Amino acid sequence: MPLAADAVPAFVYAPEIAEPGAAIRFGREDSHYLLRVCRVRAGQRFSVTDGRGRVARVVLVGTGTDAAGEVEAVEVVATPPAARLLCGAPEGERADWLVEKLVELGVTDFVPVDCERGPWERFPRRSERLRRVAVAALRQCRRAHLLEIHPVQSLAEAIAAVPPGGERWLASEGADLARAPAGQAGPCTGVVGPSAGLSESETASCIASGFEPISLAGARLRTETAALAMAAWWAARTAAPPRTR
Amino acid sequence: MPLAADAVPAFVYAPEIAEPGAAIRFGREDSHYLLRVCRVRAGQRFSVTDGRGRVARVVLVGTGTDAAGEVEAVEVVATPPAARLLCGAPEGERADWLVEKLVELGVTDFVPVDCERGPWERFPRRSERLRRVAVAALRQCRRAHLLEIHPVQSLAEAIAAVPPGGERWLASEGADLARAPAGQAGPCTGVVGPSAGLSESETASCIASGFEPISLAGARLRTETAALAMAAWWAARTAAPPRTR
Repeated sequence: MPLAADAVPAFVYAPEIAEPGAAIRFGREDSHYLLRVCRVRAGQRFSVTDGRGRVARVVLVGTGTDAAGEVEAVEVVATPPAARLLCGAPEGERADWLVEKLVELGVTDFVPVDCERGPWERFPRRSERLRRVAVAALRQCRRAHLLEIHPVQSLAEAIAAVPPGGERWLASEGADLARAPAGQAGPCTGVVGPSAGLSESETASCIASGFEPISLAGARLRTETAALAMAAWWAARTAAPPRTR
Repeated sequence: MPLAADAVPAFVYAPEIAEPGAAIRFGREDSHYLLRVCRVRAGQRFSVTDGRGRVARVVLVGTGTDAAGEVEAVEVVATPPAARLLCGAPEGERADWLVEKLVELGVTDFVPVDCERGPWERFPRRSERLRRVAVAALRQCRRAHLLEIHPVQSLAEAIAAVPPGGERWLASEGADLARAPAGQAGPCTGVVGPSAGLSESETASCIASGFEPISLAGARLRTETAALAMAAWWAARTAAPPRTR
């Protein structure tokens, strides 16, 4: 983990990190986490990431209701290859833990897509909740890049917005044997249908857009399980810790 | 899926399946599922597995409070290679959905292990609950083999009970790059530590027993995420659907 040798385990997220020497103040939730949960004491060091690759070593200087620190050093972690998931709606509240797991596994972009057989419901409100889940997971797994949660969009819009290049996978129960992760890090986009599956025309339009059907397991997987299995494969392709590069 | 062409989607679990021609009766929960959720009508066919590889095509003959059917044909699905997970306790109730996902991904054995930094609590009671979760997941993903949930045991006991042969993996954050799944199905056992991690002596004893440390992602993973990532890899190695063999 970045700077772990000389930092206590605390790791927090702050959207903006200034240069070394600058002061940094924390809100109520992060202060509680730093002072009560991690029991950081004045003079001790901890890590702060901006979720965009910068990880600061911060020394705690103020321990009031709002914790305050001073940036000592900033490390920049290399941007991982894009791992973008176009995901139909899973059942119920399963998106919460799906997002938690996607953060741990290093997915970079979560794009909720409305499909013929399953729209995302109440997404504008859920989006804020999912973002909080993503920040909490980032803190827990000490990554330097925060999962971006995109606005809900149609499958066609989401496909049109995929950057050119990279691999395109379509989770598909009936497909041939899945391909083994190559051990090479490269950008990849995956499509996973909603709980009731993609329609035939949606599947055809994915294939026409270059998405290759792959089978992730020899069985029907739930939306969130397929998304997670795909993310685990991507993680294996990039498993060399970014911080050691 | 077995017999899918001439069966309605319903798929249920029954511990014992008799030979073709025999009658089969269902309890209240399965009857509700068959008659109310799947809306199976008299004369329609559905699938029943014993969770040990037998999948019966059954025709519905009675639609009272307890559904009744008649076995028309029985197919035997090849036993998948053993995929055994020795798993420390995750936080809170996270074992519930972990078990659900392990069933979907085709893990064969779930062995809860008590570790120095994390015992399983109230396991005898939780075991029954986890078994219900496993059966529900089996129904959903239409697998012919039910995940076996073993009694809680010490890590040393669990390691001693691993059958000889096969690969042995130890989820380990600091390890080298993970190895890509080989695309070959073979027995594999994995160890995943509890939420606070394995102790140094536990790690050493795993390695001494032939478990190879592998990194599943370039970050610290929660217990259940590491278990799931490992299961996703195993699923990729056996992704050719057993039913087509």
